[in-house]
Amino acid sequence: MENTRDRYPTRTQEALRMFPRLDPVVHTDEDRRWDGPLGEAEVEAFERDGFLFFPGFFGADEVAEFREELRRLEQEPSLRDWDGMVREPGSEEVRSVFAIHRPSISERLARLARDRRLLDRVQQLLASPTYIHQSRINYKPGFKGKGFNWHSDFETWHAEDGMPFMRAISCSIVLTDNHEFNGPLMLVPGSHRWFVPTVGETPEDNYRSSLKDQQVGVPDGDSLAALIREGGIEAAKGPAGSLLMFECNTLHASNANLSPDPRSNVFFVYNSVRNRPSGPFSAPKERPDFLAERSDFTALEPAD
Amino acid sequence: MENTRDRYPTRTQEALRMFPRLDPVVHTDEDRRWDGPLGEAEVEAFERDGFLFFPGFFGADEVAEFREELRRLEQEPSLRDWDGMVREPGSEEVRSVFAIHRPSISERLARLARDRRLLDRVQQLLASPTYIHQSRINYKPGFKGKGFNWHSDFETWHAEDGMPFMRAISCSIVLTDNHEFNGPLMLVPGSHRWFVPTVGETPEDNYRSSLKDQQVGVPDGDSLAALIREGGIEAAKGPAGSLLMFECNTLHASNANLSPDPRSNVFFVYNSVRNRPSGPFSAPKERPDFLAERSDFTALEPAD
Repeated sequence: MENTRDRYPTRTQEALRMFPRLDPVVHTDEDRRWDGPLGEAEVEAFERDGFLFFPGFFGADEVAEFREELRRLEQEPSLRDWDGMVREPGSEEVRSVFAIHRPSISERLARLARDRRLLDRVQQLLASPTYIHQSRINYKPGFKGKGFNWHSDFETWHAEDGMPFMRAISCSIVLTDNHEFNGPLMLVPGSHRWFVPTVGETPEDNYRSSLKDQQVGVPDGDSLAALIREGGIEAAKGPAGSLLMFECNTLHASNANLSPDPRSNVFFVYNSVRNRPSGPFSAPKERPDFLAERSDFTALEPAD
Repeated sequence: MENTRDRYPTRTQEALRMFPRLDPVVHTDEDRRWDGPLGEAEVEAFERDGFLFFPGFFGADEVAEFREELRRLEQEPSLRDWDGMVREPGSEEVRSVFAIHRPSISERLARLARDRRLLDRVQQLLASPTYIHQSRINYKPGFKGKGFNWHSDFETWHAEDGMPFMRAISCSIVLTDNHEFNGPLMLVPGSHRWFVPTVGETPEDNYRSSLKDQQVGVPDGDSLAALIREGGIEAAKGPAGSLLMFECNTLHASNANLSPDPRSNVFFVYNSVRNRPSGPFSAPKERPDFLAERSDFTALEPAD
């Protein structure tokens, strides 16, 4: 059933103009805003730019553990035929494992999802307990990583999952060095302050193709150009273990990996428990559970 | 008729290993090498890296003239249905005009091809009079420029045009600023010193698809990785008017243009008059004349 109270109309037949976001970026009240762990400058930068980048946030030992865990998951017989395990076409090589925040999939990565260093920062900005809306770990060898075009994740989560408000933050932890030539994530600072409605109906089971090459949910060139002329483009380049926290509506893209160096990362989407998705706002049916949590909204407790 | 004396076998059924080039990089005798206009450090850098980059080589006035000339060519009725005029599919917009070194196509760009600043530098390195093997001017608006994968131009010119030796240099003049996000040309320093044979037969009329997305003539990942680990990757970033001179066998690639800024350049391939192509070494038939000069090998005279 389609959700009807729609503050962010998108995937429409006629083009709509972009408009300022209706939700705060930093949800915390003035008097709690500086409680930490993020300092004043960081909170302000997140509010202004829509992201924070922490080079080398996790140590080499932890990064090695996460990579090790991906290799273990690849071999795990019980996950062999599960849809959340995405292999290269015509190959046994695993490219992505979804829902890694579930202890049933990975104890180690479920603990990482509840790591205080992440959770405290996210919850400071969202002023709310959170749960994981989506998570995954990716691995792409050198030369193989394709790029993806500019988009807002919120636009998809709103249209296809029914996330009502902008009150979610993504954490991406790179497990390999990210440099100019292996397709680092690029962001448009300030773009999170605008919602860019997109044109065109969501096809059924859109997720099957959209994860490879997004065709609907793509912002128009004029809006994009205006936002980039205003805010520029920044690439999140840094050593393995770097953490990127980005607001759910920040426009981002990446280019193909033209280097021999692999690209690997862990990705968690923290959503406020007060921002649970209902039904899709602009899609014929719900996406599978491994792409969008719809049953377990239990607030995450920090791991010790 | 296929050419039979083949020093650089490629497009074979079985994979062949890469091997050191058989031709000099700088063709000039020791005693003429320092005659100029390139200084000793530049000649050595070209020999070592396989390219030279001159930021802002041409002034803003000249760059404006070249762009103006592209707009004039777009409107030129006599070129309307010519194959060397490449339009966007389903659109009137001109993306590339080939053979611009011919005065019958463009007086202005033919004069640029014979500009002393280019010709003297190229001929110092090749130690020979030259003619133009291929030339073009390109224009791509923001967000629209696709990338292209790593390749050696010589590999194509040898296989498909029959260029016997490595004795050609490309000059690319950018008519728009080139920065990290609009898909600048990337090069692998030192890669020109190795020939990487490629696998797979050249299909008939390969050029119709290869100009958009090269499928044959693509070096294997292991050779590429070895060359990049040795030499790294450099991106030719600089203001409009910058000149890139690169050796015909230097591996290069580019990523998609993810910025709103257009990408435009003029491209001339200077080949030694002692290195005329005969028939293709590894292709069923010759490419059209606008892609590979095969009738007029008159040495270029400097324009005054």
